[in-house]
Amino acid sequence: MNPDEPLQGLWCATLSPLDKRGAFDAARLANHAQRLFAAGVDGIAPFGTTGEGQSFSVAERRAGLDALIAAGIAPERMLAATGCAALPDAIELTRHALAAGCAGALVLPPFFFKDVTDEGIYAAYAGLIDGVGDNRLRLYLYHIPQVSGVGLSVAMVSRLAAAYPAVVAGVKDSSGSFDNSRELVAALPQLSIFVGHEPHLPALRKLGGAGTICGIANLYPRLMRRLYDSSLDSSPGGELPLIESVIAALMRFPIFGALKSLQAELSGDAGWRALRPPLLPLSAADAGALNRAVAAAGIVPGRDGA
Amino acid sequence: MNPDEPLQGLWCATLSPLDKRGAFDAARLANHAQRLFAAGVDGIAPFGTTGEGQSFSVAERRAGLDALIAAGIAPERMLAATGCAALPDAIELTRHALAAGCAGALVLPPFFFKDVTDEGIYAAYAGLIDGVGDNRLRLYLYHIPQVSGVGLSVAMVSRLAAAYPAVVAGVKDSSGSFDNSRELVAALPQLSIFVGHEPHLPALRKLGGAGTICGIANLYPRLMRRLYDSSLDSSPGGELPLIESVIAALMRFPIFGALKSLQAELSGDAGWRALRPPLLPLSAADAGALNRAVAAAGIVPGRDGA
Repeated sequence: MNPDEPLQGLWCATLSPLDKRGAFDAARLANHAQRLFAAGVDGIAPFGTTGEGQSFSVAERRAGLDALIAAGIAPERMLAATGCAALPDAIELTRHALAAGCAGALVLPPFFFKDVTDEGIYAAYAGLIDGVGDNRLRLYLYHIPQVSGVGLSVAMVSRLAAAYPAVVAGVKDSSGSFDNSRELVAALPQLSIFVGHEPHLPALRKLGGAGTICGIANLYPRLMRRLYDSSLDSSPGGELPLIESVIAALMRFPIFGALKSLQAELSGDAGWRALRPPLLPLSAADAGALNRAVAAAGIVPGRDGA
Repeated sequence: MNPDEPLQGLWCATLSPLDKRGAFDAARLANHAQRLFAAGVDGIAPFGTTGEGQSFSVAERRAGLDALIAAGIAPERMLAATGCAALPDAIELTRHALAAGCAGALVLPPFFFKDVTDEGIYAAYAGLIDGVGDNRLRLYLYHIPQVSGVGLSVAMVSRLAAAYPAVVAGVKDSSGSFDNSRELVAALPQLSIFVGHEPHLPALRKLGGAGTICGIANLYPRLMRRLYDSSLDSSPGGELPLIESVIAALMRFPIFGALKSLQAELSGDAGWRALRPPLLPLSAADAGALNRAVAAAGIVPGRDGA
């Protein structure tokens, strides 16, 4: 991938499969990624929020990325989530992802302390960029305040992009606020703005946004591909209401357990059900209820599924 | 320290001094700790919230603890804060603190994901205890929901203490809710319950609570010692209003920058002012305003200060 080509398209924030001992199962994820690519997904973002990235140590995240590449996943189709609570850890993981040839690094701000200032968040990202010290870095800022507790204002992003124009390449806006995504696209037309909330993809692309890095692509990559490809059509296809129904069904349950439960159901591989504490698998009763709710949404297995 | 002796007393949640390159300055902290001990502080808790623990990598926290011990700080006078977002990191740091001979480990729940269940938090702590796999561990649970975003219910603590009676030794309640501290003491009389909010210390001790692990002890260890020692007296001394005034002055500014600014002022060592992003030092104007507000509180330097 040409680092001077702005990133766009349909990227999957991959779930992280665990083996029976609770370790990151890179082989299973590599197989999953190949199926996603075959179904039209452009790239994957491992170890993000959907991928329980913060539940894995720095050593596990390094080794996991290396194992994915060793298993045949092209690094230029990976946007590695490398944010950490501690800046030195984020610098280490970001350097590693860059050295591995990844398309970029998707980075949360330090997220332990709350009520931090824009100035402090700016200093943290500047410290990361300076700490990595390599202008080949392509940095994607990760805005997911409802989970991280630390949001990225458009003003802070603008200041950082102005100070580091070669490095700051985009934003993943997982806030769920389309107003915020619209503001980002308007203020920063030179950046690749991605949404996390899948239903916002068509409207974002109409404004010139780059695409989506999302969780539903794990489950319904073909459906997401059709949504992406029809985003600029004047009359909407039927994908949007299907995706909204699936999200509504998932949101009735603890979301991370629900995503993995449905992944297990759709893939026929119960191994996907496991999560690392503090997240837990869905109960059998909840898993059954989720499957029924999704079935009622009218998705055609095979056509819409992975 | 006898691990079967419940921990109590006046413990200081130490600030973390940085050297000119932004690295953890163990030599300066060791000097600070010796002054605190001479002033009547029973022990220190390095790398907690006040100590910006989450801004340091696992490697830095290991090396920092080792350096403190090498500099002459007795490990049995240290309660090492070893919580991390990722369970494997918390296990590694907790094992290390135990092997180093620390009095115990003060552990946050995994704090990236929010809205987690009691069941999930229980599973995380159980995973930590099982992962450390050593009944000599003395675990202090760290409840600071307003920062971590993940609180510890009394019911969850009770269940964990019942399942691991040899290991679960106490709780640091930094919620600022005295109702919660009272409930903990009532429900778990066998545990050492510490408060983080200094003004709650006398009332807590009257109920049978263990003491405090707090930030103000960095600044005014003698004042905190007198507050501790007079906690059970029938008529209150003058320490409580002084401490409340200092806290009120500090709270007018970003708290971590304010604590380090005042530490620099009281110690005459400007090196204390530095923080790691996303936290920032107080501006010179704010530092001046803070000093004036504290001076107005009527604390007698030398008598009350470090």
